[in-house]
Amino acid sequence: MGEFELIERIRRHLPQPDARVRLGSGDDAAISVPGGATATSVDALIDGVHFKREWSSPAQIGAKALAVSLSDLAAMGAEPGEAYVVLGVPPDLDEDDCIELLDRMATLAAQTGATLAGGDVTRAPVLTLAVTVVGHAADPGDLVTRAGARPSDVLAVTGELGGAAAGLLLLENQAEQDVPQVSGPYGYSTRGTSSALVGRQLQPRARLGAGRALAATGATAMIDLSDGLGGDAGHVAAASGVGLRIEAGALPIEAGVAEIAVAAGHDPLSLATAGGEDYELLAALPPDRFDAAAAAVKGTGETRLTRIGAVVAGEGVEIRLPDGGLLPPSGFDQLG
Amino acid sequence: MGEFELIERIRRHLPQPDARVRLGSGDDAAISVPGGATATSVDALIDGVHFKREWSSPAQIGAKALAVSLSDLAAMGAEPGEAYVVLGVPPDLDEDDCIELLDRMATLAAQTGATLAGGDVTRAPVLTLAVTVVGHAADPGDLVTRAGARPSDVLAVTGELGGAAAGLLLLENQAEQDVPQVSGPYGYSTRGTSSALVGRQLQPRARLGAGRALAATGATAMIDLSDGLGGDAGHVAAASGVGLRIEAGALPIEAGVAEIAVAAGHDPLSLATAGGEDYELLAALPPDRFDAAAAAVKGTGETRLTRIGAVVAGEGVEIRLPDGGLLPPSGFDQLG
Repeated sequence: MGEFELIERIRRHLPQPDARVRLGSGDDAAISVPGGATATSVDALIDGVHFKREWSSPAQIGAKALAVSLSDLAAMGAEPGEAYVVLGVPPDLDEDDCIELLDRMATLAAQTGATLAGGDVTRAPVLTLAVTVVGHAADPGDLVTRAGARPSDVLAVTGELGGAAAGLLLLENQAEQDVPQVSGPYGYSTRGTSSALVGRQLQPRARLGAGRALAATGATAMIDLSDGLGGDAGHVAAASGVGLRIEAGALPIEAGVAEIAVAAGHDPLSLATAGGEDYELLAALPPDRFDAAAAAVKGTGETRLTRIGAVVAGEGVEIRLPDGGLLPPSGFDQLG
Repeated sequence: MGEFELIERIRRHLPQPDARVRLGSGDDAAISVPGGATATSVDALIDGVHFKREWSSPAQIGAKALAVSLSDLAAMGAEPGEAYVVLGVPPDLDEDDCIELLDRMATLAAQTGATLAGGDVTRAPVLTLAVTVVGHAADPGDLVTRAGARPSDVLAVTGELGGAAAGLLLLENQAEQDVPQVSGPYGYSTRGTSSALVGRQLQPRARLGAGRALAATGATAMIDLSDGLGGDAGHVAAASGVGLRIEAGALPIEAGVAEIAVAAGHDPLSLATAGGEDYELLAALPPDRFDAAAAAVKGTGETRLTRIGAVVAGEGVEIRLPDGGLLPPSGFDQLG
């Protein structure tokens, strides 16, 4: 299979570009007319570093690569626009696998309002994806950076935490696959299943609707949780020049996470604070905007918003345990 | 070295974003206000596929990766804007190498009016670069695609051809490093040196000024020569629904190419028609615009413009030899 033939076959699988994209795949560059502000993010996913081919189908890998990039747009409150994909194809990935991978990406793009507008296909020693996404907003001021959190803002997080890390433990066979019905110390539900947790790891969803809802209701700073709550909160604290205080007892921990953590010999809280890859959104909001933001997030039908702490004067991130103690900073470090 | 520390060190080496870029590296996404049409292109360069680390310094590899992407903007006649870089770092590339690579990219970006506005750094099995570039134009109609060539247009090419392929042969030790002063059959000069040819391979330049000059003077179709003249001309022919007739005797073949080709056992013409990576521009122009276009290209100080053939009704690409015969289609195939 020649590179040109594969590219031509891929192109036939791509949807027609939307109105903003005047020229899609197949020329030296794609042509777009943005018409306002753009938010652009690039993410690479490499076999053995970000995923394992034995755990995921090509379609799942493609969908995860796009979702991870779209999550950055969610964290800006941007509307998804164009996606550009570099696909590095190893010798043992055949043409049908490539089409499967890109078909799923194109489907996910269409579901989120994005367009696969171009890319590059090349040989590579291992499966390599690099996805560039461009999001849009009417005005740059409509986009939410990490830098606007102010003391007295409340901290909130979408969805549930720790699921992706628990799913990774399950995939790594460090924990039993059956989750017993026991209760955990932080008040979370235990009705989850191992397949849901594995799904959090392999098929993350970008909180695009929630991100736009938070931006529209007054979020002052926002970030997506890719590295883990503690570390990502630290980025917001540093960019905003503030301190963040998180109440561990308030964290919305995913069902089943505690049991997996215990079975694998981890502190359950560490999966939520240091596990990473949940791709939920952490946002700072003026206190009087929290209720409206929670209602707006709920209104998207995507997920819920939970108040987990406050922005304070100072610097750094403090995670307070229910007994009044502090989670040691090592509890913020990425697992695994 | 942690990923965050390297990213932070990289960020300190990046220039301040220009006026269009409202927020550069360091958030979930970069924010830009394009204000017209954008042209976006993505290219990946992978060790062992597109370059060899034993042939190039990290700085040269970074510069080539950016130049190859910028060349796509040149082929649209776009003004360089933002560049986003994925850097996949193998175990044996140290932090200083990464900084050297990105420093040279940032320098080249600044020289061309572009801004390194963001990216992603990750581990990878081999050195992997993926560069996304965004170019700008006031209006989408100002950008030149591959699709507008019309019968009766003239075909023109910037600069000289075959140098990159000859440089590759030199690097592969398939040819003697000393270029004798002999004359070749197609009337090209023989005063080149092997180091200049190697430079064409390792340090290509994007013809950004020439591309804008050609767009402004009425080019109807344009492509950059990355795969080789024959193959790239075929893309223009297919996109425009026309045939292209190229006169081999008119091709501006780089000095020294013929001697290297002969020494390596290749037809000299094949290096110019099938060698690839010259990153010159092939353009179609209405006949009455050629003189103005040639003057405009000369006015950039970058290079010259040479008339090499014509657009005709029909399809496909024909390369006519000085004796009236045709180069067989296999002469279009990429070398190597």
